[in-house]
Amino acid sequence: MKKTLAAAAIGVALSAPGAVAEEQKPNIIYVIGDGMGFEFISAYRYAMSDLDTKDIAETQFDHYLTGAATTYPEDDTWVTDSAAGATALSAGEKSYNGAIGMDNDKTSLKTVMEYAKNSGYMTGSVSTSQINHATPASFFSHHPSRYEYNEIADLMAQQYIKDEASYDVLLGGGQQYFIRDDKNWAELLEQHGLKVIQDMQMLDQVEQAPVMGLFAPKGLPHAIDEGKDSLAQMTSTALRLLSGDDKPFALMIEGSQIDWCGHANDIACAVHEMDSLNKALTVVADFMQDNPNTLLVMTADHSTGGLTLGRDGEYAWYSDRVMAIESSIATMRSELLDMDAEKWPEYVADKVNFELTQDYIDELALASEQEGEEREDALHDALVYITGDITGTGWTGSGHTAVDVPVFAKGPYSEDFRGYMDNTDIGKRLIDIVK
Amino acid sequence: MKKTLAAAAIGVALSAPGAVAEEQKPNIIYVIGDGMGFEFISAYRYAMSDLDTKDIAETQFDHYLTGAATTYPEDDTWVTDSAAGATALSAGEKSYNGAIGMDNDKTSLKTVMEYAKNSGYMTGSVSTSQINHATPASFFSHHPSRYEYNEIADLMAQQYIKDEASYDVLLGGGQQYFIRDDKNWAELLEQHGLKVIQDMQMLDQVEQAPVMGLFAPKGLPHAIDEGKDSLAQMTSTALRLLSGDDKPFALMIEGSQIDWCGHANDIACAVHEMDSLNKALTVVADFMQDNPNTLLVMTADHSTGGLTLGRDGEYAWYSDRVMAIESSIATMRSELLDMDAEKWPEYVADKVNFELTQDYIDELALASEQEGEEREDALHDALVYITGDITGTGWTGSGHTAVDVPVFAKGPYSEDFRGYMDNTDIGKRLIDIVK
Repeated sequence: MKKTLAAAAIGVALSAPGAVAEEQKPNIIYVIGDGMGFEFISAYRYAMSDLDTKDIAETQFDHYLTGAATTYPEDDTWVTDSAAGATALSAGEKSYNGAIGMDNDKTSLKTVMEYAKNSGYMTGSVSTSQINHATPASFFSHHPSRYEYNEIADLMAQQYIKDEASYDVLLGGGQQYFIRDDKNWAELLEQHGLKVIQDMQMLDQVEQAPVMGLFAPKGLPHAIDEGKDSLAQMTSTALRLLSGDDKPFALMIEGSQIDWCGHANDIACAVHEMDSLNKALTVVADFMQDNPNTLLVMTADHSTGGLTLGRDGEYAWYSDRVMAIESSIATMRSELLDMDAEKWPEYVADKVNFELTQDYIDELALASEQEGEEREDALHDALVYITGDITGTGWTGSGHTAVDVPVFAKGPYSEDFRGYMDNTDIGKRLIDIVK
Repeated sequence: MKKTLAAAAIGVALSAPGAVAEEQKPNIIYVIGDGMGFEFISAYRYAMSDLDTKDIAETQFDHYLTGAATTYPEDDTWVTDSAAGATALSAGEKSYNGAIGMDNDKTSLKTVMEYAKNSGYMTGSVSTSQINHATPASFFSHHPSRYEYNEIADLMAQQYIKDEASYDVLLGGGQQYFIRDDKNWAELLEQHGLKVIQDMQMLDQVEQAPVMGLFAPKGLPHAIDEGKDSLAQMTSTALRLLSGDDKPFALMIEGSQIDWCGHANDIACAVHEMDSLNKALTVVADFMQDNPNTLLVMTADHSTGGLTLGRDGEYAWYSDRVMAIESSIATMRSELLDMDAEKWPEYVADKVNFELTQDYIDELALASEQEGEEREDALHDALVYITGDITGTGWTGSGHTAVDVPVFAKGPYSEDFRGYMDNTDIGKRLIDIVK
């Protein structure tokens, strides 16, 4: 891919790494919309807008689009997962699907957060996933396998115990991994001076870093179901705690569940996760007004689900119907499985605020004839079918796609993020700025 | 949408319309990839690259991405067609799906080509569609209904007869519309001094404008089947004829059939149309080297087909298998319908260069049990299924989608095409430059 990193644009200082004086180094706010291809941005904007009047909503995504990035991994496919994607974004190097801050030789790759810490930065992460999920994990740890959640939690906790922590603030979910029968890291970390909180209402009471927030057993609830302000609240606290000193800070903010909703082919879920991210970006925008020496870079690791706005030859996407859906598919499925199948049509019609056609009712009935796991899967598929058909939303699968993703940048050095680039270029350029 | 047209970026001259001295006005090369969402650019790049080594091909799309655009029409939907899209791009105003250079009040909208002609520019269009198809028609004529091809042909021809032509060069297809039993415009136009050619081999012999090229009854053949150099050849001639004088020129180049292949859910077809456009862009790039006072702006009117690279939960897109497909689905279907169904599996396996699974063979067999139009449709669907499944390509329908599309710009005033904009902003900004 083209290396469009023009030394002229950055200035001479950057061509001599480390030569940027510390007091001049900008804060870095690195936002990752997991799974957030352009389709999700379009979907969010139109969902917030008025389909009849075409009065277009303003969103935080309008203001600083600068380019797009390729996302392919160093693996035998063009389609990345979130681990290889996050490793490219955090360390500027490609790796295999599943790799956490490591390359194909299983060598640990120094991440932008580690470089930043080395340069005297405060560092942190907020996410709606567990804090040891692929994306945040790839900024603060190194492991060959993303699904070894307990081992990754151990690595992240042990850093702190050994006084080698690459982070000052980690907020998200993950109680299940950090508070285990075999190991209670929350307790041990508290003993070593790291405040661990498990209730979001405690955020305002935290007066200083370091802090670890574990607000759910795994990921936080979907924004559409509960807590759409969570990411914004965590962002607000993280900014407060990280920016208190004279030091610059680097904060990674992840809208983690855009991807999860994409995997579930749940359009309303995805739109509300975008809204949750938009709220966090509003907090960031306000912060940047008062703190202009801050570089914001936002991108996605990949796109998810093969989302399309319009399907089946119909030139329509019913944004108003998307916004009328009140619940995630996951929650609907869970509640439906707890009730008589006779009540399913009424429940679903009520949750989607749309009259069910006979076709939709038949799909639910077919699902109800299954048992066990097949019943769950069939019910999920029926709900995907119904919500997709009602809203004109297409999905081609439950995985990721290889399409290029958007890149946004604002603040000092934002001109280095223009045009087409590779995801590793983003990591590399940020490392050059902080080291 | 944000009006990011910063007067500062353009310079004072532009804020006084018409104040740019004619000798300073840049040439305009306005490239439209019909249906060319980001997915098509990604697909093209990966199809040209090496899946094993990840050696990434250089393409003409790498070099000057500047932003993205919204595409929604002034209609009761978020999903535009090519007529409303082209009208927004040509005249800077939104309209209803089907409108050719006209708004919802059926008022004709002055297009960038008309403004340019008024300012003394030479003007033209090259496309792989018929020259009176929605996109070129929206630059050079005004009609309430895009499908009235004969009436639009009449309007385009009559302009010239009345010495009011908004064009000097029109190259593409459309013999069927301009040479009719009831009206032979080719003959009449020749009598009035407009050279009309119907064979691409005549292009090099044309010494000067004005010229109309009608190289096929309707659209030109698909690039994958025949003539992948057609758009490049027409572009080369158009540039030669339009740039001969001391006058600036405005040329619209349309990769028309990216969309047609998208509608057909034919990935190999689409990739070869992208290659055809890439070849034309190479001609443009060479021209711009020698003619730097040229602004190139490229975008899409919308995306098509709900294309996704990856599907069904599999993290793969088999670019090598896409390139192994030798024929468009349209051509395969046509040839298959002319032979015994027993021979279908062997023919298809040979054309796609892939061993057919029993599943694929069964799909073909099912189609062969149909008759008439159902047989054609079922066979089309079977071929879409087979090629999509082999390559990991997803499609969600046969229409357009509402996703934002890429914007590229290079040359003087290219800085005005940065970030997110609306499609009408592109039309408006170009009008401001030429008028």
